[in-house]
Amino acid sequence: MALIVQKYGGTSVGDLDRIARVAQRVGRAKSDGNSLIVVVSAMSGETDKLIEMAHKLNDFPPDREMDLLMSSGERVTAALLAIALTDLGIPAISFTGRQIGLTTDSVHMKARIRRITGERLREAVAEGKVAVVAGFQGMDETSGSVTTLGRGGTDTSAVAIAVAMKADLCEIYTDVDGVYTTDPRIVPNARRLDNVSFEEMLEMASLGAKVLQTRSVEFGMKYNMPIHVKSTFTEGKGTLVSKESSEMEEVVVSAVTYDRNQAKITVTGVPDRPGIAARIFSVIADHEINVDMIIQNVSEGRSTDISFTAPKTEMNRAVNALQPLIKELDADHIATDEDIAKISVIGVGMRSHSGVAAKTFSSLADAGINIMMISTSEIKISCVIEAQEVDRAIRILHDAFSLALPPDQR
Amino acid sequence: MALIVQKYGGTSVGDLDRIARVAQRVGRAKSDGNSLIVVVSAMSGETDKLIEMAHKLNDFPPDREMDLLMSSGERVTAALLAIALTDLGIPAISFTGRQIGLTTDSVHMKARIRRITGERLREAVAEGKVAVVAGFQGMDETSGSVTTLGRGGTDTSAVAIAVAMKADLCEIYTDVDGVYTTDPRIVPNARRLDNVSFEEMLEMASLGAKVLQTRSVEFGMKYNMPIHVKSTFTEGKGTLVSKESSEMEEVVVSAVTYDRNQAKITVTGVPDRPGIAARIFSVIADHEINVDMIIQNVSEGRSTDISFTAPKTEMNRAVNALQPLIKELDADHIATDEDIAKISVIGVGMRSHSGVAAKTFSSLADAGINIMMISTSEIKISCVIEAQEVDRAIRILHDAFSLALPPDQR
Repeated sequence: MALIVQKYGGTSVGDLDRIARVAQRVGRAKSDGNSLIVVVSAMSGETDKLIEMAHKLNDFPPDREMDLLMSSGERVTAALLAIALTDLGIPAISFTGRQIGLTTDSVHMKARIRRITGERLREAVAEGKVAVVAGFQGMDETSGSVTTLGRGGTDTSAVAIAVAMKADLCEIYTDVDGVYTTDPRIVPNARRLDNVSFEEMLEMASLGAKVLQTRSVEFGMKYNMPIHVKSTFTEGKGTLVSKESSEMEEVVVSAVTYDRNQAKITVTGVPDRPGIAARIFSVIADHEINVDMIIQNVSEGRSTDISFTAPKTEMNRAVNALQPLIKELDADHIATDEDIAKISVIGVGMRSHSGVAAKTFSSLADAGINIMMISTSEIKISCVIEAQEVDRAIRILHDAFSLALPPDQR
Repeated sequence: MALIVQKYGGTSVGDLDRIARVAQRVGRAKSDGNSLIVVVSAMSGETDKLIEMAHKLNDFPPDREMDLLMSSGERVTAALLAIALTDLGIPAISFTGRQIGLTTDSVHMKARIRRITGERLREAVAEGKVAVVAGFQGMDETSGSVTTLGRGGTDTSAVAIAVAMKADLCEIYTDVDGVYTTDPRIVPNARRLDNVSFEEMLEMASLGAKVLQTRSVEFGMKYNMPIHVKSTFTEGKGTLVSKESSEMEEVVVSAVTYDRNQAKITVTGVPDRPGIAARIFSVIADHEINVDMIIQNVSEGRSTDISFTAPKTEMNRAVNALQPLIKELDADHIATDEDIAKISVIGVGMRSHSGVAAKTFSSLADAGINIMMISTSEIKISCVIEAQEVDRAIRILHDAFSLALPPDQR
């Protein structure tokens, strides 16, 4: 008998009919002889509604109060699902974050899990009950206040609970049926991946993060807990996110992803001397701006340009933060470009296969697409290109690596 | 500096504008130099919405799950009010039932308060913060599960917190401006009572219970905590519910109340021998039917009739429960009458003034209103009459005891 942790997201429990259908699905998994812990999100829209109310009352609502407010949605769903399961004759019991002993640090609205004692979960499972847990929340271990884990925190709750309870598998039910080789809206023959490694999933920011919260993937990777992403609404194999397997190694490239939300910021005419980049990025860090790619172009003579990308929403803040440095550093000026996008080619197989970078660059060059910035990791090659070229670039790369074909036919 | 516990009901916090106005009212009380603990209900309609959802999923939702479900509404309001207070620059902090150490027995959906440790409340008050508490809820002291105190439980929370914190006063803000001598919809010149004793308030079932939950009055009486009922929406003196005072003793009759929700059930032709009533009412008790008045009419010879009133909604259940007894007791049959109503004359002054009963009966008789059943307590006289006569009877009695006039002018 396996112990399975299932997580259902907001759209999966979006109304009473859907909650009833989730109860049936849970019931089937139990009939198959499994022990079940089910972690639930708030019904879709509920958390946004609560946040909107708070902001109507106060432009800067205290984080601690926001946590008490926002944690209520998951509690409602947990109780409703337990009620629906009971109606099907399936013994069930709901728990809050506190009740399963999920304690966190004191950072409200983005608390980090410290530990999960899980005593009552173990009791419930031993009694043959389905334990339904309100996701996204815990208790500050020092003050006893309610904390929340940040957007998408229910994924993290689920994986952490699976780890703490030594579950055999963590299943994440969502409104998509898995992770694809690229965005199917852009490339209609994009293919669902049966398997993907934790590392690849983490690199797939844009494709992956819509499916699974990044922290939950990090958790799964750290404790080697396989995460199976499946659709709540259709039957299908989904995508198994797990440790790199021998089978995966045969695949060189797994997916092509993109990100349209970055802007490029360039500090031009920076004297080429030590410590300049450190100064720039410590100012950026002080302002808590998330930098993605960083490029230092060595230009003629003794001055250079330093470019980086950051979320479009943070661009103006970055420019304002850097403005005072122009004089201090004897730099030229700050240039910005919002009409950019990042495309990435991802695959664990790159580690042992050369030529992926060359093929990426030449495919884009052949199509007349200009590459503005490049950055690479062990399993990813990212290029910044003009925003208007994104769709075409994705199709070209998806074709170039034959991603529409099953791995053994490439 | 006084410590005041204020309670705001569902309509008082029914939308964001109202929550903002409650925050202003709390702010004024604080500016007056008071320490404040504010206990809140769920926004009006929220709890009903949650209950409806549960019943759509399951005709018999487990009580424990209902408690987790229903307790969420008060938590939302508590967080929102703390957020609104902070916006006004008033330091505030929200607490759940658990966080103030409100522990209860294990009877879900109608838990009884065991104790309130109130540590964090004391801390918050000492720090000059307004403590905002989610009403209606506590924690089962054995299992750690969330419990709720039953409908109107926020009143009980507020009075119990006032007692535990040794507050000077408990103010209950609601959508009416106090307790009246009778229903103003029936008698337009009904008068608001400045003062009413705990005992009178308890006897005023129909008038009083709409204003204040019965258990909260019992709590106030037991621990001598004055309860001041006021309107959230208008300025006014409201009604102070407190221990009988010398001033009150001058008032013979305080109010005339009515109840249209009772039905009369009569077991006719019952042999007049010991143990019959006991048998009937133990069957009724086994079926958990709430009996109000009980009358045994001694009729001719050796048989008698036993009549009682019970809520109309429980009438059929009572009849079904008693049917098997007819043969066993050698009784005649069961008669029912739904077209009845109970009117009551209430006043602590009755204890020391005779003639109230006589005046009640003769006033009704003079108007040709037939009295079907009578029951009396130390401070109440109740009569069952035909339903269609209720309005007229109330006006007659309200006039007979000159309740429209201030006590000193009667």
